[in-house]
Order: sequence, then C-alpha cells, then structure tokens
Amino acid sequence: MGLPADRYVRALLESLYQGGVRHVVVAPGSRNTPLTTALTAAGSPFRPWLHLDERSAAYFALGMARQLGEPVAVTCTSGTAAANFLPAAVEARLSRVPLILLTADRPPEARDVGASQTVDQVGMFGSHVKWAADLPVAEQGALDELVRYARSAGARAAAVASEAPAGPAHLNIPFREPLIEAGDAPFEGIDPPAARIAAPPPAPSSEVVQRLAAMLPGRRGLIVCGPESAPLPAGEIVALGAALGWPVVADPLSGLRTGGHDRSGVIDCADALVREAGFASAAVPQVVLRFGAAMTSKPFNTWLATTHPDRVHRIVVDAAGPATAGWRDPDLQADESIEADPGAFASALTAALAGHAPDRAYLDLWATANDAARTAMRQAVDDIAAAGEPFEGRPVLDLAAALAASAGPSGATLVAGNSMPVRDIDSFLFSMEQDVRVVGTRGASGIDGVVSGAVGAAAASDGPVALLIGDLSFLHDLNGLWPVARHGLNLTVVLVNNNGGGIFSFLPQRTATPARFDEWWGTPHGLDLSHAVALHGGRHTVLGAGAEVDAIAAALARPGLDVLELRTDRERNVALHGQVWGRAAEAIRATLAPVEA
Amino acid sequence: MGLPADRYVRALLESLYQGGVRHVVVAPGSRNTPLTTALTAAGSPFRPWLHLDERSAAYFALGMARQLGEPVAVTCTSGTAAANFLPAAVEARLSRVPLILLTADRPPEARDVGASQTVDQVGMFGSHVKWAADLPVAEQGALDELVRYARSAGARAAAVASEAPAGPAHLNIPFREPLIEAGDAPFEGIDPPAARIAAPPPAPSSEVVQRLAAMLPGRRGLIVCGPESAPLPAGEIVALGAALGWPVVADPLSGLRTGGHDRSGVIDCADALVREAGFASAAVPQVVLRFGAAMTSKPFNTWLATTHPDRVHRIVVDAAGPATAGWRDPDLQADESIEADPGAFASALTAALAGHAPDRAYLDLWATANDAARTAMRQAVDDIAAAGEPFEGRPVLDLAAALAASAGPSGATLVAGNSMPVRDIDSFLFSMEQDVRVVGTRGASGIDGVVSGAVGAAAASDGPVALLIGDLSFLHDLNGLWPVARHGLNLTVVLVNNNGGGIFSFLPQRTATPARFDEWWGTPHGLDLSHAVALHGGRHTVLGAGAEVDAIAAALARPGLDVLELRTDRERNVALHGQVWGRAAEAIRATLAPVEA
Repeated sequence: MGLPADRYVRALLESLYQGGVRHVVVAPGSRNTPLTTALTAAGSPFRPWLHLDERSAAYFALGMARQLGEPVAVTCTSGTAAANFLPAAVEARLSRVPLILLTADRPPEARDVGASQTVDQVGMFGSHVKWAADLPVAEQGALDELVRYARSAGARAAAVASEAPAGPAHLNIPFREPLIEAGDAPFEGIDPPAARIAAPPPAPSSEVVQRLAAMLPGRRGLIVCGPESAPLPAGEIVALGAALGWPVVADPLSGLRTGGHDRSGVIDCADALVREAGFASAAVPQVVLRFGAAMTSKPFNTWLATTHPDRVHRIVVDAAGPATAGWRDPDLQADESIEADPGAFASALTAALAGHAPDRAYLDLWATANDAARTAMRQAVDDIAAAGEPFEGRPVLDLAAALAASAGPSGATLVAGNSMPVRDIDSFLFSMEQDVRVVGTRGASGIDGVVSGAVGAAAASDGPVALLIGDLSFLHDLNGLWPVARHGLNLTVVLVNNNGGGIFSFLPQRTATPARFDEWWGTPHGLDLSHAVALHGGRHTVLGAGAEVDAIAAALARPGLDVLELRTDRERNVALHGQVWGRAAEAIRATLAPVEA
Repeated sequence: MGLPADRYVRALLESLYQGGVRHVVVAPGSRNTPLTTALTAAGSPFRPWLHLDERSAAYFALGMARQLGEPVAVTCTSGTAAANFLPAAVEARLSRVPLILLTADRPPEARDVGASQTVDQVGMFGSHVKWAADLPVAEQGALDELVRYARSAGARAAAVASEAPAGPAHLNIPFREPLIEAGDAPFEGIDPPAARIAAPPPAPSSEVVQRLAAMLPGRRGLIVCGPESAPLPAGEIVALGAALGWPVVADPLSGLRTGGHDRSGVIDCADALVREAGFASAAVPQVVLRFGAAMTSKPFNTWLATTHPDRVHRIVVDAAGPATAGWRDPDLQADESIEADPGAFASALTAALAGHAPDRAYLDLWATANDAARTAMRQAVDDIAAAGEPFEGRPVLDLAAALAASAGPSGATLVAGNSMPVRDIDSFLFSMEQDVRVVGTRGASGIDGVVSGAVGAAAASDGPVALLIGDLSFLHDLNGLWPVARHGLNLTVVLVNNNGGGIFSFLPQRTATPARFDEWWGTPHGLDLSHAVALHGGRHTVLGAGAEVDAIAAALARPGLDVLELRTDRERNVALHGQVWGRAAEAIRATLAPVEA
C-alpha cells in the first residue's frame, strides 16, 4: 500500500462495492495495473473476470449486469482499448443496463502531446453515458483529499448507473508510473467508503391515477409491454389488465410471456394478429397504455402508429423523464407521458379501480384470435418439419421446450440475437409457466456484442443459458466466446446459419436491385463456422429439420460450449415465413367470421 | 434517380471522388442503402469493398488509406455499427491517416425518442475526428439547395481528411424511407461536383532557416526520424544530415531505413546503442532535430528526454500546428517547434548550408558503433537459431530478406504489429536498399485493428505484403482476415505465438506480483490458432527455430492467406533478448574503447 495509486484505487473500489458492484471484467494491460492489482489481491471482495477483447469485454459486462440487475464494471488500459467500449456503452444507455466503464489513462501531462498510447479519453463516450468524470491523479501530497474524491466518484458512478433509468457511467482514471511495487498487499478496506447513495423510484402522481381510474373503465384498451432489460413488473401489470379487462400484448423481451403470473390475458401472437387485415381493423383500441421500449414487431408498431391515430388515446408509463436519452415515444403520438415506476403505477391504478367490473368482450376478441394463431403456427412449423425442410422458426419452439424442461430453481435464460432471431422468438416463443427469462440487446438492436451478452448471462446465472443467433452476428462477436472455456462456463448456442443477412430478404432491397442484392445486402460470408467453434474448444452439432429438443436439452445439461447449427436458405426462409403467417391468418379470420357475419 | 436521396448521395460521392476518394468500404445494412446502391451501380467510379465487421472495416479502410496516401471512405448502417468506427477514428487521428467515416442515420424525428437502431451519432467521434457534419435529409422540396450542401460537405470532408496533418472526417447522413426503388439506375454525374479544395503544405519560414543555418554547423547534432504514416521525405532528410555531418536516427516506421536514398548516415540500431551506458554517455548531442512522431524505442526516448536535458537544444519540425491533436512533444522539452512541411524545411536548410564542410567525428562515433551492434545482433540471432531455440527476433531478419527478394517494381510492405513485433522490428530490421515499406499503427499503438490494417494494405498494394503480429493482437482482430478470401487478396502473416502478452514479461508487473502475474498480465489464451486460420481458408505452417526465408518467400508468392506461426515462450523470450542486447553492448563497447583510452 505504499503507492498513492493503491490506496486511491482501493477507496474507489470500496465505494463501488458499497454501491452494489460485485463483478469486474478486466481487459489486460499495463496502465490499468493498479486496478488489476487491487481487484485480484488476496481478500478482494470482487469477482474479477478476464477478457481479451475490450469490445467483447464491455458487452460481456453488460450481459452480466442485465442478468443480475446490478451494476457491473469493466476496466481496460489506455488508448484505443477504451474506444472499444463505445458500442456497449451505446447499448447500455438505450437498453438501460447499469454498466461502469473504468478506463485507465495516462496522466494529464502526457495528453495531446504525442505520447504513446495516449488518446483523448475525457468524455470519450459523449452522450452515451449518463455521467462521466475524469479523475485526478493520486498524489502523495494531497492523498487524503484525493482518496475522498475517489470514494465520492465511485459512489456516484454506482448510483448513477443503477438508478432508473439505469445506464452506463464512465470514470477515466489517470495513473503515473510506477504502477506497481513489489509486495502483494491484501485488499483491506483502509478508508471508509463513501455514503451509499439511494434514490427512490419515481412514484405515480395520485391525481393522474385518479383521473385514469375514472377515464379508462369501459374503453377498449390495450396494455402494450415492450422490451425491458430489468423485467417489467409482470404481476402488477397483469393485475391491472384483469382489473380493466384489457389484453396485455407482450413482447418476448418484456418478461410477461413466461413465468408463474396469470397469463390468461397475455397476448403472445400480436405480430401475427395485426398482419391479418380483418383483425387489424376489428381490433383497433380506444386507449393504449404502454410499458417498456418499442415493440420488436414492426407490423405491430406500424399498426399502432398508423391505425386511426386521432381516435386512440396513447399513454406511456416510464420511470425515465423527458431529459433522458430513454424517452420512449418513437411514433411521436403519445397523448400522455407519465413519469412513474411501472410497478408502483400499475398497483396504484389497480387499487383505484377496485370494484370496477370489467367488460371482457375486447379481451375475448384478442384472446380467441391469439389462441387460434398460436395453434395454427405451431402446426405450420410441424408441417414444415414433417416435409423435411429446415425452418428458422423451429429452433425457437425447441429451445422453449428444452429450457422449460431444464429450468431449475433459478430458472433458465434465452438470449435473443438481433435481426431475425428476436423476430422469430417474437413469433414462436409462446406463453409458458416456467421461469424462462428472455433477454436481448434491444437498445440499439445491433448484431454486435450479442455473443458476449449471452456469455455474460451465462457467467451470471445459476440456471441454463441458451443463445439463438444468426451467422453474421455470431461471426461479428466471435471473440465473445473466449470466456466460456477460460472461465468454465456453460453456454448452448443455436446458430441459424443462412450464410448472410437473412433479414434483408424481407426488405425492398431484394427486389429493387436483384442483380446485386445478394452480394451487397445478403452478403454471404462463405465460412465454415465449425472452425470457429473448434477455435474456442466447443462441441459442434448440425441440427436436422425436425424437432431437436433432446439435442438442445443435452447441450444445456453439459458444461462448456455447445454450438448447434441449423443451416437454412435465405430465399426459402421468406417463403416459409409467408406460409406460416398465411396459416395463422386463416385461423385468425375463422375466429372473426361470426363477429363479421 | 427518382428518390431525392439518390441524387443527393451521388452529388456527395462525386465530390468525394473529386477530392481524391477512389475506394469505399461498405459494411452491409439497410439504412445505408442509398450509399450502397450508388457505390455499386453500373458506372460507379468507386471500388467498393465489402466487410462484415464495422470495427475491422474502418481499420481496413485505414490500412488502405495509409498504403495509398489518399483518403478512403467507409460506410455503415445506423446504431452501434457506427460506434464500432471509433477505435479506427482514434488511430487515424493520431497516426494522420485520411479516413472518411460515412455513417447512415435515421432522420432527426427518429432520434432520442426510443426508435429502433437509432442512437446519438451526431458528433459521435468527438475530438477524434478533424471535422464532423450532421447532414440534412434529402427532400424533394428543397433538393437543389440540399444537393449543393451535399456537394460542399463531400468536398470539405475529402479536403479536411487529406490536408496536413491528415486525419479522419465524419459525415453523418440521415435517410428517410423509402431507401431504394426499383430500377437499377447507373451512376452518372448529374450535378457538377463542388470545387476541389486545395491547401498548400506549410512552408518553412526563411528567417528560421537562416538562423538555424548559422547556428547548427559545428555542433554535435542528431536528426531523429520517428514513425510517420505518409513516409518522411527520406532523400531531403539524409541530404540535410550529410550537409550537417549528423547521424540520422531512423525509426523502422520512418521510411528512412529502407530504399534507394543514401543510407550511409542512417542509424538503425539506436535502441541497442543507448542501452549501452558508455555509448549513451559518450554520444550526448548538443542539438536534436526531430521529424515524425515519438520513436518506437522506449530506451531511446528515455535517453533523449533525460540525458542532460538542459544542455540539449531540441527542435521539432512538423506540418501540424499547435492547435491540432497531433502536437508532438511528449517529453515537453522542445526548445523550438517549427511548423513546416518536413521536406520543404529540410531542402531549404540544406540549401542554406551550402558551402559548409561538416565535421564527421560525431557521425563516425554513431556509425561505427551502429555497424558493430548490427553485426553482433545478427550473429547473436544466428547463434540462438543454431542452438535450436525459437526466438522472436528471428522472423524479422527472415521477413526482411524474403520481402527484399520479392519486392517488385511497386516494392513490398511489412506491416508491424504493436507491442513486441514493432519493437523486434526496431531491433532487427536493418538498413536495406530495397523498397520494403514498413508501416504500423503507432498513433495510439493499440493491438486492435492490426490485422485489418495489413489486409487493407494488401488490398491497396500491387507488391507483396507481410504482417508480423503477436497472438493476442491476431486474435483481437480475427474478423479482419475475412476480406482476404472474399476479395481474393494475398497476405502473408508471421504469427509469433507466445500464448499471451509477451511484452508484460519485460515490465515490473512480472516481478512485483509473481503469484498472479501470468493469469492477469501474461493472460494465456490457450487457443489453437490453426482453427482461426482454417476458418478464413488460409494455409497454416509452423515455423522452426532456424532461418525460414524460403518458407516466407513462398508464402509471399502464393495468392491467398498464409499464416506462418512461430511458437515461443514468454519467459525465455526475455532471456534471449537480454542475450542479444548483451552481445550488442559488448560490440558497442569495443568501438568506444580506443576513444576512452
């Protein structure tokens, strides 16, 4: 503890610990040596995790933080290493994950004068972090004051990252040499950590609750639950739905499709429902009450935004206020934006509705069509399998079954890759009682960092974790697999390989430029991904067209990395999705017929 | 050409073309469709290059731009895709490479309202780009004005990126849907491009030149040439050295060690020379005249910064002024900083010295010791090989020989990986007549993006290109290999695999925390990298301890990817480097003995 930096860093880390940080991801380097030394010292209260690629390391930390619902820190050396944190910072901000970026830096006198590995890290993540501070260098001459500053900065970083809406915070920490001295000092709390900072979640205004309790009953209303990194309060929201007699449309990433809460009013096929013109027109609501981020389903979002915009009263409930980067009104049509904790709001409104006897006709319209769609889609997927044709929706059904069977006391987790996988999960992951948590990176919805997010979830979870991912996304974050073997984790990856970007086949680019579509949008990579699995010491299995629940369950039960690859064709995938939606539409129309007659 | 975005984008691209852009790297996506459509249309004057990972794509563009000495653009879709450009932007700024970042964006009304794949891209790269603009959306109602704006923005981006000091520029380009329409319109210049913007390189002040021409003769002076992305003017600088009778100390990335200029005064073993205490003390200069960035050699930089700082007059010559991020005085000891084009400055000073007969004693001191060091180091490396022990310096000698033999009319290129490879190249890449260009990413000196930079060099070069890289750096940018097969390139990689970060074994961390040094700094990854080579369709060869010039030359001559792996031991590597420096020191001392006697 002779070096000023050692006492300074330990005070900072103690305050992060008091603020809830338990896990710290370490990307190796020289300049962050005081952090690495402290984190790995005897008696360190932290679990340090080594990672070799800073881009993946930050996404790995994000995956852990999302899974745990607590802030996770990641540290790196100075230079472009720090710049590699930006993608995960962007995602953490928008998907509200508490992430603490600890970038080591050269001291101020080395900045902007051509010194090696010195780049402008002050405010490097711009608007993409909730708060950033450039810390002073630890110096013997003012060490007591500087240690107090470090404690304060650590406490604030943890609090800023954690309080709603959660998000990233950045501490840039300059160090002068020497960075280390001989003698392996154990980690001891030598300075009291800073005060724990506590902020109450925003409470609903009782005036607003009373007004809504008077206004909403008797109207045809929809509760819409979008993606949320910290799961939405399922029990409170379905209770509100029951009190109002309203359907609860649940995105797969909302947390409402799965679990032991009352799912009788939960709609899990909204994407298919609104694709059917008759239903879309019959089901127009008078009120929409939204929780969470924008829905994954583009047809649903479009329907909601464009159907009788002037006759629908739209309410957004969100803990984030207007000044945050989390403002949630992508359609720019909200009539009311209520800043409140969703659970507290739903409970207060439910209480205020006590005694109201809901009319269930509108809920029945949705629930009946939803049941029909679900049955038809299941059947359609089975029929495709029976015909021996690989289909990208199939693994969702099999993953759901295998995870439900494997879920122990701490549940199971399905990580949704972006682009097509999350859309297939939206279509084919149906309501279930088991505690299968579905998570994804829907802040910026990039295909980058998805592998790392899943590996982070595996590192932070006692239950089985599976990832459904496409080939481009798998390849983009291949380095993300490294911690599986290094840290003895267990991850099952279902890799849907259509040799390129399958989602583009659903877009106008396909028909507008047929001659060069495949090269510039479809972008076949031509790689045999079994080599990538071998590189990371995983087991590689090729899936067949039929049900593969057993193969997935076996992989979930085995330690280590399993990659189960389903090879599909992008063109056929469009046609097969069309078949499934067609079958769903038929079934949905059949439920409407008596109403229309 | 019906869509406003099409005319707008083509006007923008025409102006970039007029500003010198010929190559554009395209990362696939939907939002950047108007750019992709134009770049790949019949009649497009651009060479578009597909890449699947935006981080690598930007470094690939950087590698091309560095090789070509002309601005190269890279485009991507909205969201975290854009954030992945940051590391290369940081590097391009500090290593002065003209890079143009074209990020597609959602339109302003989708920003900060929770819309999908919409993140704050305005000013996303902060101080790390020389100039950034958030373009307006193309709209029919004001299209003529907007097209003029796009032309102006394209011209400015190309000029800003190109003019000294070169660097990155960022255009954020929002698009509203529709992004494409049917009908494959050829690329035609329908609007005149903007005026070409030309800036003169900064000319030296004649007052300063005259003063130096009077002051410098007769003093013991050193010309120090550091790394530079656009090669330093070798002929002009060595002519100045000859006129003054001063040694020219050449970093391997300065461009002065190799080529047909007079290399008789070029010192290529400065790192070894200043490690020898007797030489370090005998060779203290009175004047240091610096060109380029800080030297790769830490011993040399330390010697220069700490040896009699008050008695050495230090002059920095650089085209960049004090307001740029390229200020080059890491030791904070410059006595004069001269803003001038290095070639023009050297020529003017040489002309002003005409008639001066230099005293060569100080040059002889350096040159004699340098020759002795070089001979001793060559012999030491051969002796290690003869003992059958793999040594990380060996491949540098073999690469130099193979590249010299393979260099055609357009020369050959050696790309230096960061951390140990560039230091080994500093030690073992000796002066040669052949046109073997040595390049590296010494702006921020990160180990990221190195593979992509080399692949970009291969894409931009008619001659053979080889990369010397360590295992962590190779793994970090593994995706960077993808374009080799996709675009039919030829790259030879010599991979020095010591299963971790070899440089840390040279640092105090090794001895200060012996119990956990290997895990947290050495960081063995444990991967069999032959799988990584197989993934990208390359040939994998394991190198022996002896000379492998033939194997390298054969790889250089073959199309496609060759990875030649030398497996070494990190601990032994420290000892072997010590042996070599010891042998060099002996030889250097022998040249000093008569002087001391």
